Amino acid sequence: MSTKTEISTDDVLRERSPRRLGQLVPNGMLEDNYPRNMWWAAAHVDEVKDGPLARWILETPVVIYRLENGTPAALYDRCPHRWAPLSEGHVCGDKIVCPYHGMEFDTTGLCTKAPTQKMQPNIARIPAYPVREAGAFLWIWMGDPEAIDREPPEVGYQTDPNWSFLHGYYEVAANWVMIRENVFDLTHIAFLHKNTFKQNDWINAPDSFMEGDVLCYQQEFELAPLSPLFCAGMGLPEDKPVKRVQKGTMPSLAISFSDWNVHDPAPEPGRRSDFIMRGCHIVTPAQRGRTHYFWGSAFDVPALSDEVIAKTKASVIEAFDEDKHLLEIMQRQIAADPRGLSYLEVTLGPDKGGIRVRQILNKMLEAEGRPPLKGGLA
Amino acid sequence: MSTKTEISTDDVLRERSPRRLGQLVPNGMLEDNYPRNMWWAAAHVDEVKDGPLARWILETPVVIYRLENGTPAALYDRCPHRWAPLSEGHVCGDKIVCPYHGMEFDTTGLCTKAPTQKMQPNIARIPAYPVREAGAFLWIWMGDPEAIDREPPEVGYQTDPNWSFLHGYYEVAANWVMIRENVFDLTHIAFLHKNTFKQNDWINAPDSFMEGDVLCYQQEFELAPLSPLFCAGMGLPEDKPVKRVQKGTMPSLAISFSDWNVHDPAPEPGRRSDFIMRGCHIVTPAQRGRTHYFWGSAFDVPALSDEVIAKTKASVIEAFDEDKHLLEIMQRQIAADPRGLSYLEVTLGPDKGGIRVRQILNKMLEAEGRPPLKGGLA
Amino acid sequence: MSTKTEISTDDVLRERSPRRLGQLVPNGMLEDNYPRNMWWAAAHVDEVKDGPLARWILETPVVIYRLENGTPAALYDRCPHRWAPLSEGHVCGDKIVCPYHGMEFDTTGLCTKAPTQKMQPNIARIPAYPVREAGAFLWIWMGDPEAIDREPPEVGYQTDPNWSFLHGYYEVAANWVMIRENVFDLTHIAFLHKNTFKQNDWINAPDSFMEGDVLCYQQEFELAPLSPLFCAGMGLPEDKPVKRVQKGTMPSLAISFSDWNVHDPAPEPGRRSDFIMRGCHIVTPAQRGRTHYFWGSAFDVPALSDEVIAKTKASVIEAFDEDKHLLEIMQRQIAADPRGLSYLEVTLGPDKGGIRVRQILNKMLEAEGRPPLKGGLA
Repeated sequence: MSTKTEISTDDVLRERSPRRLGQLVPNGMLEDNYPRNMWWAAAHVDEVKDGPLARWILETPVVIYRLENGTPAALYDRCPHRWAPLSEGHVCGDKIVCPYHGMEFDTTGLCTKAPTQKMQPNIARIPAYPVREAGAFLWIWMGDPEAIDREPPEVGYQTDPNWSFLHGYYEVAANWVMIRENVFDLTHIAFLHKNTFKQNDWINAPDSFMEGDVLCYQQEFELAPLSPLFCAGMGLPEDKPVKRVQKGTMPSLAISFSDWNVHDPAPEPGRRSDFIMRGCHIVTPAQRGRTHYFWGSAFDVPALSDEVIAKTKASVIEAFDEDKHLLEIMQRQIAADPRGLSYLEVTLGPDKGGIRVRQILNKMLEAEGRPPLKGGLA
Repeated sequence: MSTKTEISTDDVLRERSPRRLGQLVPNGMLEDNYPRNMWWAAAHVDEVKDGPLARWILETPVVIYRLENGTPAALYDRCPHRWAPLSEGHVCGDKIVCPYHGMEFDTTGLCTKAPTQKMQPNIARIPAYPVREAGAFLWIWMGDPEAIDREPPEVGYQTDPNWSFLHGYYEVAANWVMIRENVFDLTHIAFLHKNTFKQNDWINAPDSFMEGDVLCYQQEFELAPLSPLFCAGMGLPEDKPVKRVQKGTMPSLAISFSDWNVHDPAPEPGRRSDFIMRGCHIVTPAQRGRTHYFWGSAFDVPALSDEVIAKTKASVIEAFDEDKHLLEIMQRQIAADPRGLSYLEVTLGPDKGGIRVRQILNKMLEAEGRPPLKGGLA
Repeated sequence: MSTKTEISTDDVLRERSPRRLGQLVPNGMLEDNYPRNMWWAAAHVDEVKDGPLARWILETPVVIYRLENGTPAALYDRCPHRWAPLSEGHVCGDKIVCPYHGMEFDTTGLCTKAPTQKMQPNIARIPAYPVREAGAFLWIWMGDPEAIDREPPEVGYQTDPNWSFLHGYYEVAANWVMIRENVFDLTHIAFLHKNTFKQNDWINAPDSFMEGDVLCYQQEFELAPLSPLFCAGMGLPEDKPVKRVQKGTMPSLAISFSDWNVHDPAPEPGRRSDFIMRGCHIVTPAQRGRTHYFWGSAFDVPALSDEVIAKTKASVIEAFDEDKHLLEIMQRQIAADPRGLSYLEVTLGPDKGGIRVRQILNKMLEAEGRPPLKGGLA
């Protein structure tokens, strides 16, 4: 932890002048506030199997498919002839075929066949996007391919047989930053989720700090019953007091982890005393005001029963529905309000993580030569 | 009636030049044409009971709730922390609590508690709106509180036990002025409502005049059967000829009354010969092109039976559905038509009341320093 | 065919410079790209019978109705009084009556009665549109009436008792040019409709040429089974090889014909050996991104049975549903994509007809003094 950097609330607040009562660091939630030069999750691996998948990513129509050997590929989802969506066509060998007039394209986006004429149209070429499989997801690079400087996030545990991995998908009608901030201020668990998570000791926020370029938090809790969401997965009764170390990490704006390290001080004879539930929150901007949200919950327990998986999944969905419901009202309301982003935004101590998210975002956009995000009061 | 001021059609028409064939007095129906410095109806009293009510008023998200002693309160419906809608939270004593991170606010909009940190954020303050209970409605002042120069409209009869008051609510997808004008040109009853109101003698318009700053009309009708909508409430048979004096008053742009003063020249033995049905039309701008419309029908008869109330209510709704249907098509059509407001608008004699509505509106907007409303042909 | 003018792919491609990789001839599919001075189909004759029909045509609300003698009439669908849609009113003799306050208008758009006042408002006049009945459709002229220089297209066969005419209507959520181009590049039949039309020899395009100002194509096919869509109508078995001469004509941008001239070289004894199926594709711009599409299929066989008509109609609809589905995704996707029309558009040989459609369109717009259509890469 030599690179740990404390962010104090004072630091954050000091930037605020009496004249500037709006957003301290605007998050641009009504705009295209998506960095291009990074890996975003395009799909869960199971979504791209037999045929092409159409998906909006960063306000771009993308078609994702697999070659015969299983390698994933991604192209701009508009044929360069008359702009039909290739995703309505089919995959033939390693080529994707346009539904409208049968033009075929390879994974570089080059048209290799135009069956309705003899000459091949050698200028017919579609943007192709680098795509990688890592863990349970396909990752896409929508920016400059020359700028690729890293692999997608390390998520090997998602496919590790020693872990049981549950996951789900939402299309959330809210900007991706709102979800990102939501999962970096966990004090909302004690309020928004008080009847679902029932982890009501989480009223104070942890410290946020950087480990290299990974945003982190860590927080220890005294003996208290564990949230019923995770008791079944760990085989713990719902009323048994346990210790928890909550650790969060955000290796990139696209993904963050929320680890529940649980210690049972009085295990039943022959039972483990330590468990991990590794939550992951993956967000991908879709269209303006819409976000793909993939969530995962992994237990360091192999082969959980279908029953436990179904029960846990249902509980998680019940809780995350509360986030979706609230964030969507917020987005809709802020977008419909003529005052929009021009409204006081008070930053509290627990927002240190979220503010750091915005700072990272703003730096990335600046590095891409994008204009600064709007927000704040004049 | 010493202050009675006649508006002649000639006066109105004289303003029209050969070059200006569009709206004589634009009503700005595609814009924000809402005066701020006046009382608007926020809700029927029964809508705000146990929990907070979310409502768009004048394109502003508002939350309305009641203190422990029943006093109503209204705040801007965005927490100053991360902009969650307080209306999704709950009321605790006299405070409203944000659903997201538990911040509490008093009726002045001041944050009195931020449970996720120790220090209270003393800059956290939300706009608060004066709100009053009068008659069956809560009234809100969205403008400058210093400009409050009157009480909400006098509507005591709505809660008077000597009267029977029926009411209903519509969200109408049309600008509020269209409803206001609708209820000030009652000749439409003979056309639009010919199969519901069946008051087809109302083909000629009454005079409009001012009593102080109250716009009025008054019109006497010869013996004719009364509209079946109101026969049950007055205990009159549907085919019996009666006399009617129709009187309308608009104490403010937010509310107008339409009184049906009915005289039965040949009452059954022991029965009354005079009745009043006091209609009220309350409009409140919601979002662009959307209006809250509260209607009421009060009979000067105590304790009408449930059966009569249900029958009358069903009949009124059937008739008002005709208005809603037509006004919504008009709004949608005018908004979708590239010609928009730039189209000839011919003013007829019966529009004197409606034109005065527009003139009052335009003066109020001018007094608030707002730009003139758009409309008319070049 | 003395006026036949060949358009070579080379001619088309020669216009493209290395710097201009976008649309060669923009079709303006996201804009108002509708010529005014031509006949457009307003409705099928059966749509306007007892009462008025409301229809958006060229982004204008229009009401269409019939006089007592059956003559069709069309007016701008906004009363000049308070802008109510006349289409919600009723026809009374040769007048149309406004639903709101009973004003009556004649076919020239003049108000002939305002029943709520004594004086007739002689400035109250609505735009009227010339309308003609031809074949199975009513045709409307939305432009300058002085510019009428021709009759609506000749479609007498549609009502000729020696023909059997089937027809249908779609509102397609796509710009009209996309449909027009679709029916002028029939090679899509071999791809998009491979499981419905099953006319998979149509992989190469015919020549396009002009006959006067009529765009045409003609193409002969060797012996092959006829599309099952038309076998029943011609009384041919589905697997019998026949010869086909496919001929297309577009007398105006509003209508084109697709004639299937079928020759059975080995007819059953006593049976015909030659048949025609005359397809027609009628498009009328409605609102932005929405088009009325009327299709017709006529067989030169009198009085086809109800059974054959129902079977043929169901098959045609199944095929045209494929076009509607694809074109609507394309329109939605292109409109939602920030890149919009600024994307490479490669023109193939089979697009000669479609490109000529665009050129005709662009010339008409230019003649009307309209700005050039947008599109193409910088």
